[in-house]
Amino acid sequence: MRAVDIIAAKRDGKELSREEIEFLIRGYLDGTVQDYQVAAWTMAVFFRGMNAAETAALTAAMLGSGRVIDLSSIPGPFIDKHSTGGVGDKTSLILAPLAAALGIRDPMMSGRALGHTGGTLDKLESIPGYRTALSIEEFRDILAKDGFAMTGQTGEVVPADRLLYALRDVCSTVESIPLITASILSKKAAEGAEGLVFDVKYGAGAFMKEADRAEELARSLVTTGEAMGKKIIALLTNMDEPLGNMVGNFLEVEESLDCLEGAGLPGVPGPGDLMEISLELGARMAVLGGKAASAAEGRALCADCIAGGKPRDLFLRNVASQGGDPAKLLELRGRWRSPVCGEIRAPPEPAEAAGAARYIQGIDAWRVGHAAVSLGVGRNRTEDQVSPTAGIQFHKKRGDPVKAGAPVMTVWSAAEEGLAAALPQLEEAVAYGPAPPAPRTLIRGEVRSGGSPELTGPASKGVR
Amino acid sequence: MRAVDIIAAKRDGKELSREEIEFLIRGYLDGTVQDYQVAAWTMAVFFRGMNAAETAALTAAMLGSGRVIDLSSIPGPFIDKHSTGGVGDKTSLILAPLAAALGIRDPMMSGRALGHTGGTLDKLESIPGYRTALSIEEFRDILAKDGFAMTGQTGEVVPADRLLYALRDVCSTVESIPLITASILSKKAAEGAEGLVFDVKYGAGAFMKEADRAEELARSLVTTGEAMGKKIIALLTNMDEPLGNMVGNFLEVEESLDCLEGAGLPGVPGPGDLMEISLELGARMAVLGGKAASAAEGRALCADCIAGGKPRDLFLRNVASQGGDPAKLLELRGRWRSPVCGEIRAPPEPAEAAGAARYIQGIDAWRVGHAAVSLGVGRNRTEDQVSPTAGIQFHKKRGDPVKAGAPVMTVWSAAEEGLAAALPQLEEAVAYGPAPPAPRTLIRGEVRSGGSPELTGPASKGVR
Repeated sequence: MRAVDIIAAKRDGKELSREEIEFLIRGYLDGTVQDYQVAAWTMAVFFRGMNAAETAALTAAMLGSGRVIDLSSIPGPFIDKHSTGGVGDKTSLILAPLAAALGIRDPMMSGRALGHTGGTLDKLESIPGYRTALSIEEFRDILAKDGFAMTGQTGEVVPADRLLYALRDVCSTVESIPLITASILSKKAAEGAEGLVFDVKYGAGAFMKEADRAEELARSLVTTGEAMGKKIIALLTNMDEPLGNMVGNFLEVEESLDCLEGAGLPGVPGPGDLMEISLELGARMAVLGGKAASAAEGRALCADCIAGGKPRDLFLRNVASQGGDPAKLLELRGRWRSPVCGEIRAPPEPAEAAGAARYIQGIDAWRVGHAAVSLGVGRNRTEDQVSPTAGIQFHKKRGDPVKAGAPVMTVWSAAEEGLAAALPQLEEAVAYGPAPPAPRTLIRGEVRSGGSPELTGPASKGVR
Repeated sequence: MRAVDIIAAKRDGKELSREEIEFLIRGYLDGTVQDYQVAAWTMAVFFRGMNAAETAALTAAMLGSGRVIDLSSIPGPFIDKHSTGGVGDKTSLILAPLAAALGIRDPMMSGRALGHTGGTLDKLESIPGYRTALSIEEFRDILAKDGFAMTGQTGEVVPADRLLYALRDVCSTVESIPLITASILSKKAAEGAEGLVFDVKYGAGAFMKEADRAEELARSLVTTGEAMGKKIIALLTNMDEPLGNMVGNFLEVEESLDCLEGAGLPGVPGPGDLMEISLELGARMAVLGGKAASAAEGRALCADCIAGGKPRDLFLRNVASQGGDPAKLLELRGRWRSPVCGEIRAPPEPAEAAGAARYIQGIDAWRVGHAAVSLGVGRNRTEDQVSPTAGIQFHKKRGDPVKAGAPVMTVWSAAEEGLAAALPQLEEAVAYGPAPPAPRTLIRGEVRSGGSPELTGPASKGVR
């Protein structure tokens, strides 16, 4: 078997065998296949794609490059959620304790902020003392004790993905659905979860701007994940506007705690979009974990569970388990902010519309995400440091009426220059108009294989 | 400027600027652009192609990576011929002295046998004492004195091509028309010739099996070469069957000498196909060198010139100039053969056709080329040694009538095992049939920009 022939076969649109894909990945790791050959192969995959069997073989080969966490000493079910990344997306902090409260264990391995998107690890680390670099033994202990644990990936898990992702990143072959699928699924399969709920985002602030491409990725995740023996449901959710009213590390921990205390539940003031997506994702975790027969039943279960307060208690307990101080967290809540503060206010109305009502048409998540990087919330390069207390609070969002001069956002930065860079981007992120915008679809649909066949066949464009 | 963005632009089908292409090639040479990035880029080029401006920019960037031979101290015109490679193709040995005899200087830099195709340098080196590793100074001196010189590429000429070709070879991105064009043209432009005649081969024994692809390459060579300021004509010639009656290094030197003595000229016995292609290519060299107003006039000039004997004398003079011994060459002629000898004879007729006439339908150049490698004529890896005296002589070719048991080929090998490997391949290479095959088109057409517009427009499929 030769790498050059495997590259040529994919280049010519042929299906690769499991053995050929294993040869390539194993050879890449042991140095017998060169990085330039793997680079050329990823570009051939970009153009030719891979079918479900090839994608599953790649996922398995990558998974086999490292350690798979053995959870057999702990009772399940083990269900995790994974988001493809967004702005203000803090649902992991809500869902892990929510699932645990329902009797589902969530072995959550998360990533860091990169580019315009935030990262769960950075948010958690803004809690003073909180440690996300758990050993596999600590991870398992906390998961057994609290029902969930939140950690970063250790070097032992899927080393092939780190290598391959770094290569794709500099060779412009990141945007390939089968390669993205294998990267996500190999890492998630290494956690040991039996079921996975994917939040596949589309829109301005998502990696995939178009809903069609997001749907394609969702189908690929479902098909490939099931070929790997996992139970999978994917939701397609809108990421045109940041999720919730807070973007920032400690700010998002605060907002998660608000939701865990019921904010945003039907009839309760708070971030309704964030709660809505959390309930819908939680409902699917409940279904996959065998706690509910349907998504509707799961959703009601989740809402009741949050209202009962147990998820909030489990969250604070986890903070203590992972080295943080829950009392300190509650003491800092609402007060710990970066020192340099600015505001975005609604501009004066045009003369011809003076005095008329105006409405926010939307807040561009992509621009907000980049402004957040300027503030120090996120990072452009993996080696950059992030600020726990920088960020943005939205006072108005899409559909809200707003008067000239009224505050739309409050912005905190560690330094004047970060604020100066962020403010024009944030000004530009808000669109105003004379009438309320049309209602937005927050959740476009669900992709799963167990459902109607039209959702899983490759020819279908429809999504529930 | 970043390599990753240039790769992404090509991946997405955008046109690259001259500056971007230069950045990539210069960076590849100085180590600021990584080989894996160049590998991914070549695969993107394989799928997306490059237009004439991009291909010319790549050719210029590659040319600029090394030394261009300065011929300004010698009077021109300087015209060279380049073949895309075939089996039994020894036209270079005929054309260089022929052009010189017409008053055209041919600064010929050639390559070696690789895979199933032969190499001019290996053929020349079979002449005892002949040196093909000339310094640039020697090359220029011999070119001035004899009217032509034949050398391999020195390390100073187009280093980017050596690197890029080696990378493409292991990354399965060799088969890309713009990359092939830039590779060929950068090397040819470095020779300093002002005009180039390309022999673009198609058929079983060519790198491009299909005439359409060969035509595409011919057009790309013409368009790009002219964008580089060169005068270019390309002929599309058939390589289904080996050219001439000899395949082997010294055997092909002998056959070239035969042609230079008139063998194969109209009315003279000898390898008619080889002479035909030599006259047609020579005619184009005469046109580009300003020695003939039309191809027909050039052809007549070439035939008369060969009949006059001057090209033969110049060939022998060049042998002496490059370290060989012309007297020794003439002494060995017809006698110097590898010791292990075999034969291919026509098999018995099927019973139902006993006694009926049979005809050779064709001899598969691809199989003959691979058999020749087994005999030691060529090489599979660049580091392999070749034999001067191994090879194949055809007694019959396409269209010839043949009786059961009559000799079709004589085969010479340095070792028994080489012969044993080659004979079955050679048996299989010959097709027999009850009737003469339809006449074969040896020269499918000409591609040049100065001619009828239908030959140069991208929409045209016609070739003269």
